[in-house]
Amino acid sequence: MADAKPERYELYYWPTIQGRGEFVRLALEEAGAEYVDVGRLSGKEGGGEDSIQGILEERRRGPRPFALPALKLGDTVLSQTGAILHWLGPRLGLAPPDEDGRAWTLELALTVADLVTEAHDAHHPIASGLYYEDQREEARRRAADVVASRIPRFMAHFEAALHENPAGSDYLVGDELTYADLSLFQLVSGLEYAFPRAMKVLSSEYPLCLALQARVAGRPRIAAYLASPRRIPFNEMGIFRHYDELDAPAR
Amino acid sequence: MADAKPERYELYYWPTIQGRGEFVRLALEEAGAEYVDVGRLSGKEGGGEDSIQGILEERRRGPRPFALPALKLGDTVLSQTGAILHWLGPRLGLAPPDEDGRAWTLELALTVADLVTEAHDAHHPIASGLYYEDQREEARRRAADVVASRIPRFMAHFEAALHENPAGSDYLVGDELTYADLSLFQLVSGLEYAFPRAMKVLSSEYPLCLALQARVAGRPRIAAYLASPRRIPFNEMGIFRHYDELDAPAR
Repeated sequence: MADAKPERYELYYWPTIQGRGEFVRLALEEAGAEYVDVGRLSGKEGGGEDSIQGILEERRRGPRPFALPALKLGDTVLSQTGAILHWLGPRLGLAPPDEDGRAWTLELALTVADLVTEAHDAHHPIASGLYYEDQREEARRRAADVVASRIPRFMAHFEAALHENPAGSDYLVGDELTYADLSLFQLVSGLEYAFPRAMKVLSSEYPLCLALQARVAGRPRIAAYLASPRRIPFNEMGIFRHYDELDAPAR
Repeated sequence: MADAKPERYELYYWPTIQGRGEFVRLALEEAGAEYVDVGRLSGKEGGGEDSIQGILEERRRGPRPFALPALKLGDTVLSQTGAILHWLGPRLGLAPPDEDGRAWTLELALTVADLVTEAHDAHHPIASGLYYEDQREEARRRAADVVASRIPRFMAHFEAALHENPAGSDYLVGDELTYADLSLFQLVSGLEYAFPRAMKVLSSEYPLCLALQARVAGRPRIAAYLASPRRIPFNEMGIFRHYDELDAPAR
């Protein structure tokens, strides 16, 4: 009997945070793909933290995840958010058909990922393994730079990418939604959660990004997802954390 | 008259450091590709810092670099080291033919890039825009974690990737050289420069990575490149910097 091609994606990610896994969740949700968020299953169903930890620790020939998120489809195991999205894009109808367009989509997603790392390091500038409270002073210094210099620089880039898209400013790449748009939606939403005052002050400088964020939020499948219990709320265990003292000063 | 397809790559990167541009330089050198390192040309030849800064600042429709390195070929402009390497890989014979293999190669290069960022943040944990001397105390704390926790974790991953490669342990992906191998060569070389004591202590734990590093260094085109003035020496303006106080303590 020939094996049927497996069609159900398995996402391995921490069950209590959006984190980097959210970029993959959004792509799967927008496409209406059949997938299991393994970490959020019960232990009885083969899920939970042990199960997702297991994929990092099991002995495995060939490709192996360094960290989560990881995505499985049949024998294929992928990790690194950008690589997962690039691989998923054409399968889910979330990447342009041409190679240069695909490279540009990947570039944008990797640039989103760079600011995600900086948003993380704003509250953990010394070590991921230490508590926030053990690096609070350093976090104040780092976050001040992230808010004053880094977020504006990245947001100006995404705004320019939208403004200079020859196919119009509704999407980052061409005239259809890609995973880069979903990633920018998530980035802006996370930054608004973590740094509400800073983002409010900046908001007049990137109207196209905000319009894109609203456009993505309004897509039927994304809207249904955001309203569902599958969307984990932002919280202070994730990558985007709201600590009032790290936001821009109140005016 | 039909336009001939342009065959000469233009690399845009800072002329005084290896930095992230070095991962692209190594791929072009290994392939014997015709390329110009624009930043290293004289001003008369259209090169220099102004010229490479220009590509970041010029008004441009369509894809635009957020940061350097950027690569041009005809009308194509790419940035983000991982995206550049993924795009170049098949063109230069430095990527496997199958899609899953290409995803794995990209994954490995992105994981190398993650540790490169951490190696940078070891000396600049607060802000890239500040001098090292202005974040020296924070750098000591961050570097201690990078040396004690992060480098061993990443190196264990690359060692396992070599060990568990079904095609043998000479290369990371399949049985031929890819840009992932060149990237790991550069990573290990940079870490040895920045943290010589730490890397010496750890070296018995990743013999396959060290064998790969030597194998890459011995390839005729790479050996010729490393011996040439085109290879900029490591220095304290780059990403991998040697500050004795950030290395593991002397024993």
